Amino acid sequence: MRFLQSSSKISQVRILAVDPGLTRCGVGVIETGVGRRVTFLDVFVIQTAPAMPLTERLFRIHEQLRTALAKHEPDLVALERVFAQQNVRTVMGTAQASGVVLALAGAANLAVAMHTPSEVKAAVTGNGRANKAQVAFAVRQVLALDDDRLLPDATDALALALCAAWRRGMASPPEGTTAAGMARTAASLTPAQQLWRDAESRARRAGSRS
Amino acid sequence: MRFLQSSSKISQVRILAVDPGLTRCGVGVIETGVGRRVTFLDVFVIQTAPAMPLTERLFRIHEQLRTALAKHEPDLVALERVFAQQNVRTVMGTAQASGVVLALAGAANLAVAMHTPSEVKAAVTGNGRANKAQVAFAVRQVLALDDDRLLPDATDALALALCAAWRRGMASPPEGTTAAGMARTAASLTPAQQLWRDAESRARRAGSRS
Repeated sequence: MRFLQSSSKISQVRILAVDPGLTRCGVGVIETGVGRRVTFLDVFVIQTAPAMPLTERLFRIHEQLRTALAKHEPDLVALERVFAQQNVRTVMGTAQASGVVLALAGAANLAVAMHTPSEVKAAVTGNGRANKAQVAFAVRQVLALDDDRLLPDATDALALALCAAWRRGMASPPEGTTAAGMARTAASLTPAQQLWRDAESRARRAGSRS
Repeated sequence: MRFLQSSSKISQVRILAVDPGLTRCGVGVIETGVGRRVTFLDVFVIQTAPAMPLTERLFRIHEQLRTALAKHEPDLVALERVFAQQNVRTVMGTAQASGVVLALAGAANLAVAMHTPSEVKAAVTGNGRANKAQVAFAVRQVLALDDDRLLPDATDALALALCAAWRRGMASPPEGTTAAGMARTAASLTPAQQLWRDAESRARRAGSRS
């Protein structure tokens, strides 16, 4: 892992983020650079048809992710944490795709940063219940992307990459964006709010040891 | 797939069954042979410690399954179908391990037969709510195994392999076993019971197209 080998002077950290799913699996790649800024590198959505055998769908996801990992050689993988949702079938498909991502990260000896959808939304928009359009707007603003034809799965993956970078202090939201305002708000929490936030983090960490 | 290439005179079909899990993942291999009998070939349990990073756990499961598939060259993979259980974390781990199995089967162009735990229990013991010991007893009886030190994950995987073989008519339960009596019972269902069973199968098939 590049950033561990040169931990004394971190300059660039490359993050490959995956918003897992069977029908649409979003992949976004960013790099942190000079002045704690982030740069857009790549984004794409792996799509597999529901009519295709499950084995073939997961194999295709595996192969496209393997190719992306080989191409971008990230220092860190970010993965959306799956929670129980309404539809059990959707959760299963998402968890199965996550298993493929995790095994590939393990093969490459890469650490995986996991964040919930609400953590990601809060990081980029300041609102844990933001809608897809708000997340997409924030992502395009921060990464200076003028492409408004990106699928929500693509912008969600880039939002996850940004969340992973900011949460680990590898970069900061640029001034003048909603996310920068959000970061200042977080820095001025009352002691009670801070306690609550800490308790939430501990619960999340405990949840990750499954 | 061997059994598709020689479908006119099926003699031997090899089935590798996986009872997926992060902490213990059972793998059982059987072969159907002359007179619709089944032969035991292999059984083992992949164990990974909960303290290990999730990436490493899934990578180890991936590697050991990949080795087993290369060694046994099965014609069919059987996989326990995951359902929502009490513990969301356990379900997620099981689904992640299943994703790894499915992607590996896809890579080898192998079909995957999925059965629920209650289907498997019913197939080998005649009771969909049988306990681990009853399943283990039935498996040892059918496969003429005298090893009573097998982990439940090992006997569960072998039970799944037997269920997959019998359900597809690739073999029959040997006479004198509980499973043989069960098969006779199934053959003498009332029309209403048969309709109910057919509806159940359709629901399962619909459920597999997720």
